[in-house]
Amino acid sequence: MESESALYKAWLQYSELRDGDLRRVYAEWFGRVYLEADPGTGPGQRSAVLETAVRELRHGAGKMLGVDPVVLIGEPDEGPCLVIRRRRGTGTGETASRPWEKGEGAFSVSLRPSGSGRRLELSADSDRGVLYGVFHLLRGIAMERTPEALETEASPVNRLRMINQWDNADGSIERGYAGKSIFYRDGNIVRDVARIRDYARLLASVGINAISINNVNVHEQETRFIAEEGLPDVARVAAVFREYGIALFLSINFASPLAIGGLNTADPLDAGVRNWWTETARRIYRHIPDFGGFVVKADSEHRPGPFAYGRDHADGANMLAEALEPYGGLVIWRCFVYNCMQDWRDRSTDRARAAYDHFKPLDGRFRDNVLMQIKNGPMDFQVREPVSPLFGAMRQTNQVIEFQITQEYTGQQRHLCYLIPQWKQVLDFETHAVPDGGEVKRIVEGSGFGMKYSGVAAVSNTGDDACWTGHPLAQANLYGYGRLTWDPDLSAEEIAQEWVGQTFGNDREVAETVTRMLMSSWPIYESYTAPLGVGWMVVPHTHYGPDVDGYEYSRWGTYHFADRDGIGVDRTVATGTGYTAQYFSPNRDIYESPGTCPDELLLFFHHVPYGHRLRSGKTVIQHIYDTHFEGAEAAEDLRGKWTSLEGKVDSERYALVAERLAEQAEHARHWRDVINTYFYRKSGVPDERGRRIY
Amino acid sequence: MESESALYKAWLQYSELRDGDLRRVYAEWFGRVYLEADPGTGPGQRSAVLETAVRELRHGAGKMLGVDPVVLIGEPDEGPCLVIRRRRGTGTGETASRPWEKGEGAFSVSLRPSGSGRRLELSADSDRGVLYGVFHLLRGIAMERTPEALETEASPVNRLRMINQWDNADGSIERGYAGKSIFYRDGNIVRDVARIRDYARLLASVGINAISINNVNVHEQETRFIAEEGLPDVARVAAVFREYGIALFLSINFASPLAIGGLNTADPLDAGVRNWWTETARRIYRHIPDFGGFVVKADSEHRPGPFAYGRDHADGANMLAEALEPYGGLVIWRCFVYNCMQDWRDRSTDRARAAYDHFKPLDGRFRDNVLMQIKNGPMDFQVREPVSPLFGAMRQTNQVIEFQITQEYTGQQRHLCYLIPQWKQVLDFETHAVPDGGEVKRIVEGSGFGMKYSGVAAVSNTGDDACWTGHPLAQANLYGYGRLTWDPDLSAEEIAQEWVGQTFGNDREVAETVTRMLMSSWPIYESYTAPLGVGWMVVPHTHYGPDVDGYEYSRWGTYHFADRDGIGVDRTVATGTGYTAQYFSPNRDIYESPGTCPDELLLFFHHVPYGHRLRSGKTVIQHIYDTHFEGAEAAEDLRGKWTSLEGKVDSERYALVAERLAEQAEHARHWRDVINTYFYRKSGVPDERGRRIY
Repeated sequence: MESESALYKAWLQYSELRDGDLRRVYAEWFGRVYLEADPGTGPGQRSAVLETAVRELRHGAGKMLGVDPVVLIGEPDEGPCLVIRRRRGTGTGETASRPWEKGEGAFSVSLRPSGSGRRLELSADSDRGVLYGVFHLLRGIAMERTPEALETEASPVNRLRMINQWDNADGSIERGYAGKSIFYRDGNIVRDVARIRDYARLLASVGINAISINNVNVHEQETRFIAEEGLPDVARVAAVFREYGIALFLSINFASPLAIGGLNTADPLDAGVRNWWTETARRIYRHIPDFGGFVVKADSEHRPGPFAYGRDHADGANMLAEALEPYGGLVIWRCFVYNCMQDWRDRSTDRARAAYDHFKPLDGRFRDNVLMQIKNGPMDFQVREPVSPLFGAMRQTNQVIEFQITQEYTGQQRHLCYLIPQWKQVLDFETHAVPDGGEVKRIVEGSGFGMKYSGVAAVSNTGDDACWTGHPLAQANLYGYGRLTWDPDLSAEEIAQEWVGQTFGNDREVAETVTRMLMSSWPIYESYTAPLGVGWMVVPHTHYGPDVDGYEYSRWGTYHFADRDGIGVDRTVATGTGYTAQYFSPNRDIYESPGTCPDELLLFFHHVPYGHRLRSGKTVIQHIYDTHFEGAEAAEDLRGKWTSLEGKVDSERYALVAERLAEQAEHARHWRDVINTYFYRKSGVPDERGRRIY
Repeated sequence: MESESALYKAWLQYSELRDGDLRRVYAEWFGRVYLEADPGTGPGQRSAVLETAVRELRHGAGKMLGVDPVVLIGEPDEGPCLVIRRRRGTGTGETASRPWEKGEGAFSVSLRPSGSGRRLELSADSDRGVLYGVFHLLRGIAMERTPEALETEASPVNRLRMINQWDNADGSIERGYAGKSIFYRDGNIVRDVARIRDYARLLASVGINAISINNVNVHEQETRFIAEEGLPDVARVAAVFREYGIALFLSINFASPLAIGGLNTADPLDAGVRNWWTETARRIYRHIPDFGGFVVKADSEHRPGPFAYGRDHADGANMLAEALEPYGGLVIWRCFVYNCMQDWRDRSTDRARAAYDHFKPLDGRFRDNVLMQIKNGPMDFQVREPVSPLFGAMRQTNQVIEFQITQEYTGQQRHLCYLIPQWKQVLDFETHAVPDGGEVKRIVEGSGFGMKYSGVAAVSNTGDDACWTGHPLAQANLYGYGRLTWDPDLSAEEIAQEWVGQTFGNDREVAETVTRMLMSSWPIYESYTAPLGVGWMVVPHTHYGPDVDGYEYSRWGTYHFADRDGIGVDRTVATGTGYTAQYFSPNRDIYESPGTCPDELLLFFHHVPYGHRLRSGKTVIQHIYDTHFEGAEAAEDLRGKWTSLEGKVDSERYALVAERLAEQAEHARHWRDVINTYFYRKSGVPDERGRRIY
């Protein structure tokens, strides 16, 4: 651990437990740990993951319980102890099990009679299961849970639980709001991997099992990561993540054969190109035997791809998949493909349609080890948008959902915006793709259509900032992302409580106040920014702060079409772009009519007059005014709530959060006034309540 | 001359003259040049400027006339020849005459009987006069003018004729649209000054006599130019400009005593600070005996200044002036001072008022060698704004007008915009500051109030681009700037004709077409961009392309206040910000009433309904539509005009201009559609002529 500051430790504070029965009983158990001998290996051949599990156990027990566990090998005696059993080891090198294999990571915890008392047993299928079980136990102790509450049969719902770093070799982070990269400096991978190790630890503690370490926009320097000279450094990083059971992926440049292969084409059907990728895979696996695979952004926002050669996404992805297949590697192909040179005057093109229109026709053409990575919504990580209609539309294609933990459009870690409730809504969305159980979470975990691979990915919100995430409370999004991907049925509030308890301790007032702040934050942020699902209205490029027309006449396909009479995008089949037809019935019918369309998405699907009555009974214009006045007040109120905790939270974290909340309150007023003034100037409709609009 | 390409040679093409009488007679005269001995010095002690004049004469005569002049010292015989007489030398080192001294640079050209024929005589007060006279003669020959047409009594109207480079030590150029800096690379002044010399030559050929070589925003590296270690390199550049009679200035960081002086204050009334500047002046003049002085941007857009110490601009400027005074140096203090952290909700603050409000009260407090540099308009180099009311308002303060040759807000050298007509309007503006002759040009040349120093400065549009200025036709603005500052009574059309003739030769069709293109270009650019003097409506930061609301809710004080009913800024005394009162009567009354305010400035001074009738008879909204449709058509027409010259202009310049005009035509359509759509959506008023608005 690089630093002992509370900011740095995030949710792994491991504060010393209060004296009492609970501490006494845990201390007894954790004082003696029986480690069942590896069924296949001797004690000298423990996997790196198992070593990590033991190290974490000792560390947590030492900090919280003040004990230094004696680790014993073999069958336990009748005294109080913790017994760790595992069915198989994780293996090493080429024989290592992939983290996304079925059952990998599962564990159970139970209390068993032992002599005159009880002992604690952790059983797992694999070493990763042991590691996750250890973190589970430590989490429970940190939260002062009873032993009974720790009993569980746990198995991760999503097999791939991935983090995408958008870090660049120059040390910058695309859409990063937490400092510079912890991976790179001045074009190279850092020498000292201590902080990367601490990051791996945080990720493993919430069940993350895969990471891509470079930006999906792959520039010149990162293109060379898969060249012979780049791989030793990548392998150093892979070794760090391996200790924590996490597979390392790289984002690759589709034009690599041209850029670094000395070829004059990157055509996926060209034999020379295919051979180059085959050799490249061989080279990579020689350095990193358990390499995860490639993440690919192709033919998107000016990145190279198969289109240049008259080929399609399936041709491109399958070529890469074929090269990785012998080693068990995956190709994760992003579906964020749209026309980013759109003419705003052309109202027939609808960016929301793009992913479906591009990929649905290719369903069934992808190889088994290709996964489509689909953003949660059809546009781009807005505070509110509908669920992507592509989920469930592809029935023979592995699917991964992509979330964005980094708060590009949701306040950039200067505003508080706890995103788990948003992600929950997406995962719980009923697609009606199958008669029964067509929720997005069933589709992305693979059971919906019996996919071979599936899972969840998200763009990281971390950097070299003292608290990892810019805003100390934004740690909750990283924590929650991991927990939610492990078990999408956890509630957002449970996750918040877990995070608050571990991060700030178990003082009831602190726990309740911070949980309430988190739970209210997404609706608050939504209320003072772009209204009713219309999206954007942000300053171009930075995406921070209001600029209602910022993208209105641009080439990005993100419009609101506000005029003096009304606002919104007509995406109906009847009179609009026909986007609603991409949903299964009855969703398509619900969205098609302004009478049934949910209020919060009304302007995403319909162009309506300002006087249009929402289902709430308010007019659109009054809704805009009301939410913006209320939202700015609520932001001020968040600040007040935090102030009430002064002295109950350590001063460093208190001050940092207070500073951010002050900025948020000020900026929320700016948002309020810009949006209200914009619409008042345009509509001419006064606020019913006569509040100040400039 | 670094390159012989037509692009690079700009207006100094010096193409070989056609055979004929004209060439014959000039060749005879230029074949033998009598140089009157320096009254004060022997032939071996010619000034660098005189050496340059002779070199330029030989070069031009050789290229255009095919002769290599014999240079003779003393009184001429009776044969045909050119006689150069001068009253005094320019001097060298500390004794060198300053370029802005009274009478410096004047010359006369006359035809005198000689033997059986005539000879040409160039007489000058000084070596700079000889140099300007030589360029005058060469210009006349290049334009195939008759000898009689070259006769003149010429004297520069403005004594200071300055160029401001906004070049940064890192090689970038703030608001530069013509490549990288020719002065700097990677933090240092370039080793090879050949291109700087070619630039000095271009500038001298149009009479420029002063240059500041670094950006008014002075960063860390440029702050060190006045330190002992920085001065040798600056002196190398000064030597180059000295050859061409141009004085070198530096932009300085007001906080230099803190940044590089080791002091803990930059308070202008602090004795230590004053002493530091005195020492600094001594140091500079030891390296550069004819150093021009300082250009200062202080307390403006976050630059340091005297305000931090509770002092005012006069305190700050006078301290620097006192340090430079013993050496004859000047302090040029910029008046571009305003609140750049304005709250858009505060309608009582008016950025247009700022320069007057800041500086008028200080009139009379500045030392003799301080000059106020005032932007031509009260805002910031818009395509249309009124003249700054500060001209004439300060009666005891030296004034320099500042223009912007670099086309920040006027198409960034991607659009054609010949700015001389705009500058002419400004210079001809009657301020009514004095009963008779209160035109701006009289004020800035110093005769209005009998100022000791005065003149004109402008931000350069040059860089290391092949044609110096990005757009080959943008060379006309640099050329015209020099010519206009020498003689503000030249017409914009005369200047255009001069430039075209020298640059593209004397083919009548080419000359007429390009002149017409230049003369129409400013009105065309104005017609499809922000209407009726309202300004901005550009993309923030880049300032390129339309974004009507881009600055509407920002802190920059640049608003249009468009709502569904009307548009414009009320700057009247009666109901607005009171800005009109800063003008002398009758201007204040003319601007105060929408009935008398010129149409082209209506929205600068008044907020009016879209249905308001302009003096042209059109409504405001119809004017917006009409000008934007017509403007886009006219831009397309410019392109057509140029196409008609294919084959008549060398292919390199033809292609480059054609490419820029194509981009302009496309971009003008984008401007047209964004502006028209914005106002149609907002006003709901249809175009009377039913043209397509999106």
